[in-house]
Amino acid sequence: MSLENVRVVLARPIYGGNLGAVCRAMKNMGLARLTLVQPAPTLDYGEAQKYALSAQDVLEGRAEAGTLDEALADCRLVAGTTARPGLYRSHATTPRESAPRLLAAAQDGPVALVFGPEDHGLNNEELSACHVILRIPSAPAYASLNLGQAVLICCYELYLAAGLFEAPQERHPEAPAAMRERMFAMWEEMLYRIGFFDLKKADHMMMAIRRIFSRGKLSEADANILMGVTRQTGWCLDHPGRAHPPRGAADAKPESEI
Amino acid sequence: MSLENVRVVLARPIYGGNLGAVCRAMKNMGLARLTLVQPAPTLDYGEAQKYALSAQDVLEGRAEAGTLDEALADCRLVAGTTARPGLYRSHATTPRESAPRLLAAAQDGPVALVFGPEDHGLNNEELSACHVILRIPSAPAYASLNLGQAVLICCYELYLAAGLFEAPQERHPEAPAAMRERMFAMWEEMLYRIGFFDLKKADHMMMAIRRIFSRGKLSEADANILMGVTRQTGWCLDHPGRAHPPRGAADAKPESEI
Repeated sequence: MSLENVRVVLARPIYGGNLGAVCRAMKNMGLARLTLVQPAPTLDYGEAQKYALSAQDVLEGRAEAGTLDEALADCRLVAGTTARPGLYRSHATTPRESAPRLLAAAQDGPVALVFGPEDHGLNNEELSACHVILRIPSAPAYASLNLGQAVLICCYELYLAAGLFEAPQERHPEAPAAMRERMFAMWEEMLYRIGFFDLKKADHMMMAIRRIFSRGKLSEADANILMGVTRQTGWCLDHPGRAHPPRGAADAKPESEI
Repeated sequence: MSLENVRVVLARPIYGGNLGAVCRAMKNMGLARLTLVQPAPTLDYGEAQKYALSAQDVLEGRAEAGTLDEALADCRLVAGTTARPGLYRSHATTPRESAPRLLAAAQDGPVALVFGPEDHGLNNEELSACHVILRIPSAPAYASLNLGQAVLICCYELYLAAGLFEAPQERHPEAPAAMRERMFAMWEEMLYRIGFFDLKKADHMMMAIRRIFSRGKLSEADANILMGVTRQTGWCLDHPGRAHPPRGAADAKPESEI
């Protein structure tokens, strides 16, 4: 699996809270391999633990490297991130654009996503070790993302590109045409009976009703509920006096209970 | 502009750090309107300020609402987020799928992205006030994102769907074919002169050279540099003894300086 070959490399990270958030974001997106290069001596690993929550395993499984070159030596493709434009950054791509190329390379061996320290990001020497430069889309008024947030976006795009996420599926399929026609016929009958339209205008109004119930998915369960509404309305019309009084009526009870 | 009509609504938020991270993520993605519904009495606004960094304006401009209904009353479309599957959540879509519909609605008035509290997310009653249910893709092993991270992903997808981000553009365009042919001819001549191939194999090797330099973009600036390499090599071949000695050689100096 390609995602197992994706390594997140933090160069010179400073804050424990961010390190923890990085671990959580990685695990949220199915990644597990983290390498720290020259972390700040003041980095608070207790705070990192607190922010990692259920991603302690990512934090505890981290590797440390003395230099960036060492952290990257076996990587087939290295993507570095930058929030700043500049001479050596003008050929940047977005994480979404580059995700397929990174995943393809990850089929053959480790690939790296490299993030710089919180204050200034990757410097030019560090960027020169990267084969791909990533620029996360953000608003010019405040372009710089928090470290944990930047890691999340890059991992999210890789996770989506890997195609591993199974979108939620409704058990109930779309109602087939015959079922919909039966439902619309029942609605037409009900709307006629309650006096919502006279017969001359039925076709016109039914076009609107069809439009309303066809804007989005209409599942079999939905159609069954909407047919049930017409059946129950018909029953009430056939049994005068058996409908409940309005709920607003103070001490009212259904007539059947009187 | 549609993004101005996007309102982020936090229902019953608990932690100041997350509130600050939400503000920063919003501003990173071009959003400014934040509403808090029944924030925890213990919510630390000082901590929120610290984490908001340059997004203080979003934090200070926040609205507060006594109920979720009040926060949503004027919204044309309301999207609620959930990390959990379940009976009332099975028709969830992803932020990427729903972003265009939300932006389209935002052209006519406010739309809302609703996020629940850090511990349990939105409850069923709150979700029932939402017209669209969003499920952020995440790994089943750890599906629950931090609040600030969840807000970021939703805002990021809206920002990208709005098409406002101008991808970084290189000033230098692709080198045109005539320039590339000139460059390849110069490389062929150089490779022949240094004895890299004999003339019988020139065509075969030049196919590889063409492949190497055509894998990705080759800008005019790139082609100029590669032609410069052949020119300088030719100069050295024509001026024996004028090349620099290897840099490894301990006390060596270029012959010209001797």
